[in-house]
Amino acid sequence: MIDFEYLSDIVQPTDSKIVMLVVDGLGGMPHPDHGRSELEEADLPNLDKLASESSCGLTIPVLPGVAPGSGPGHLGLFGYDPVKYLMGRGVLEALGIGLTLGEGEIAARGNLCTVDDQGILTDRRAGRIPTSESTPLAEMLDQIEVDGAQISVYPVEGYRFALVIKGEGLSDNVSETDPQRTGVAPLKSQSIDGDAASKRTAQVINEFVAKAAEILGGRDRANMVMLRGFSLMPELPSFGEQFQLNPAAIAAYPMYRGLASTIGLKIIPTGRTFDEEVQTLREHYEEHNFFYIHYKPADAAGEDGDFLGKARALEALDQSLPPLLELAPDVLVVAGDHSTPAVLAAHSWHPVPVLINSKWTHGTGSRAFSERECATGALGTFYAKHLMFQALAHADKLIKFGP
Amino acid sequence: MIDFEYLSDIVQPTDSKIVMLVVDGLGGMPHPDHGRSELEEADLPNLDKLASESSCGLTIPVLPGVAPGSGPGHLGLFGYDPVKYLMGRGVLEALGIGLTLGEGEIAARGNLCTVDDQGILTDRRAGRIPTSESTPLAEMLDQIEVDGAQISVYPVEGYRFALVIKGEGLSDNVSETDPQRTGVAPLKSQSIDGDAASKRTAQVINEFVAKAAEILGGRDRANMVMLRGFSLMPELPSFGEQFQLNPAAIAAYPMYRGLASTIGLKIIPTGRTFDEEVQTLREHYEEHNFFYIHYKPADAAGEDGDFLGKARALEALDQSLPPLLELAPDVLVVAGDHSTPAVLAAHSWHPVPVLINSKWTHGTGSRAFSERECATGALGTFYAKHLMFQALAHADKLIKFGP
Repeated sequence: MIDFEYLSDIVQPTDSKIVMLVVDGLGGMPHPDHGRSELEEADLPNLDKLASESSCGLTIPVLPGVAPGSGPGHLGLFGYDPVKYLMGRGVLEALGIGLTLGEGEIAARGNLCTVDDQGILTDRRAGRIPTSESTPLAEMLDQIEVDGAQISVYPVEGYRFALVIKGEGLSDNVSETDPQRTGVAPLKSQSIDGDAASKRTAQVINEFVAKAAEILGGRDRANMVMLRGFSLMPELPSFGEQFQLNPAAIAAYPMYRGLASTIGLKIIPTGRTFDEEVQTLREHYEEHNFFYIHYKPADAAGEDGDFLGKARALEALDQSLPPLLELAPDVLVVAGDHSTPAVLAAHSWHPVPVLINSKWTHGTGSRAFSERECATGALGTFYAKHLMFQALAHADKLIKFGP
Repeated sequence: MIDFEYLSDIVQPTDSKIVMLVVDGLGGMPHPDHGRSELEEADLPNLDKLASESSCGLTIPVLPGVAPGSGPGHLGLFGYDPVKYLMGRGVLEALGIGLTLGEGEIAARGNLCTVDDQGILTDRRAGRIPTSESTPLAEMLDQIEVDGAQISVYPVEGYRFALVIKGEGLSDNVSETDPQRTGVAPLKSQSIDGDAASKRTAQVINEFVAKAAEILGGRDRANMVMLRGFSLMPELPSFGEQFQLNPAAIAAYPMYRGLASTIGLKIIPTGRTFDEEVQTLREHYEEHNFFYIHYKPADAAGEDGDFLGKARALEALDQSLPPLLELAPDVLVVAGDHSTPAVLAAHSWHPVPVLINSKWTHGTGSRAFSERECATGALGTFYAKHLMFQALAHADKLIKFGP
């Protein structure tokens, strides 16, 4: 799994503790008006001081030029090759609402949509129907029974729902029913590989969609469903076993807890704010020797294209850091799963600032925690999937490779 | 072998000469008292001037965070993937005393150790017995005869010896007899894969150990042996053929000569000092177009945790350079097999400074030969296994790849 076949020969369990703070969408871009990035715009006394005492660098989440989703972005930071262990859209949607997927269960992302009386798509998002209106519809869809499989439907938000198919001999190698444009009818799902399992799964899906169309048929909008991203949970090796750690995750958002649980991190319940996450870390600090702690607001502001909002979100993070820093973990890693420059209002391909602080770092010239300062840091620019090796090395958890 | 399947299509033999100076344990870390690394502390007029006229960078010996032994560290510099071509501890021990291993011969590292009258280990290093006492014991062990194989024992130093097993149908897939701690009995070697060859090899080993115990049994210390690192020489493709070079090695220490000989470098006999190595280079300069020349003292001081000693060793190197620089090789590479920061007193994971000087380099901003200056150099931070490509390119030995 891990990108180094001899890892088990050199990794050793020790008492030293690693805290990995993942700032979602950490990296940004210079604003065209003044040339400062969000990190450079923000007033970050704690992070800048930390950077000046740390080894800094940039991580490439997947490959140069490739902007990752949250799934690949996080798996890379956890040491998994994000190309090898790709999670489907359906799986991520299920994780995002706190579902756990069993072996062989197929998840999909569903849209409520609107079709005309000829069955032609007129609105792929059903007029952005509010959650209050869509939730009872999801509950009706959840009652649908199909031949040879059990289908569950879970409301997500607005027009979105998650769907899980359980049954024997199913496959996720089936096509999506969302044609990705209006003016045409939703598609029938089809087997992609021609195998019996995927043919049967496509049948199950099409039967479900037909029954959903009947149930919703009398409505003006949200009178049809479309399904995308049929996917199984990939078999992910245990993070704790591979790295010889006793790891835990602290994350306010369900999807990040879901991601962490898929690789075997113990999920510690926490509150809805980062301050509460830090408090949780402090309360459970003795129980584990690896903590993943997640900060979301920087990404949210970046996705909204809110440059100052993202800078403020980074400042809020900075202000919340002292009780975390007081713990003085043997290794503190501050990393991001990807960049989300407000200028782009989207996840981007830009390498992401990272710092590692330990007794073996003394600062090597980076004066602030920013894209520019990290670009000349001692860690260099490297693949996120190798970050865990760096963290382990700085925690004295790796012995020499080879004689 | 080489990490580029089309290399043979683009490499061309030319008259240009490449000298690769490998400074063992070259890279260091800032000293916590003053923030300067060993390279920054040392007065290095020749190396600093060279850096200012060269392209500089950092090499990653194996992977970020991974500290290599000398074997993987050197193989990377020679262009071999150090993960793919891992040499065992036994092979390195044999190379270190100048042995050549034939095909199918299994080498191991041996310890003389002390057991009590119950056979329980009381000292894994036999009281650090002096070489004068251990050498006759190794000679006695060398007389041991076992069924179906021929075993040779060679004294190394102090409690250490090398063992080589020759025979038909043997395998190195057998377990070590060293339990790595006292208070228990040495282990029996066992087949790891359950194959006939490894079962037979384990038998041979256990028979040897039983006879060794008999021979040494009357003694107070050094009355038992333990064996580790059973290994075959990996099949390493020829360096000269792959890179279309006529290569030679100049190294005062046997292990580095051994490493070089395994990839087919011609070993030129030399003296015990670097000055003598340089003299040897000058005398044989017309005979080859690639020279590997090795400098050891920096690593030795680093391993001892002697910060100033390492700085002085680097200064001594610098002072010895003029007669080498006078040769004005078409390409001069100064590289290290790994970092050995005195602060850690061990090989480390830190990227290693490197410079390439040729008619195609004019200096790109690095003002000195140090970790910090090389971090912003024109070569960037790259895997050591790609260094040879850079050296060949700067020597006009690579044509364009692809039409």
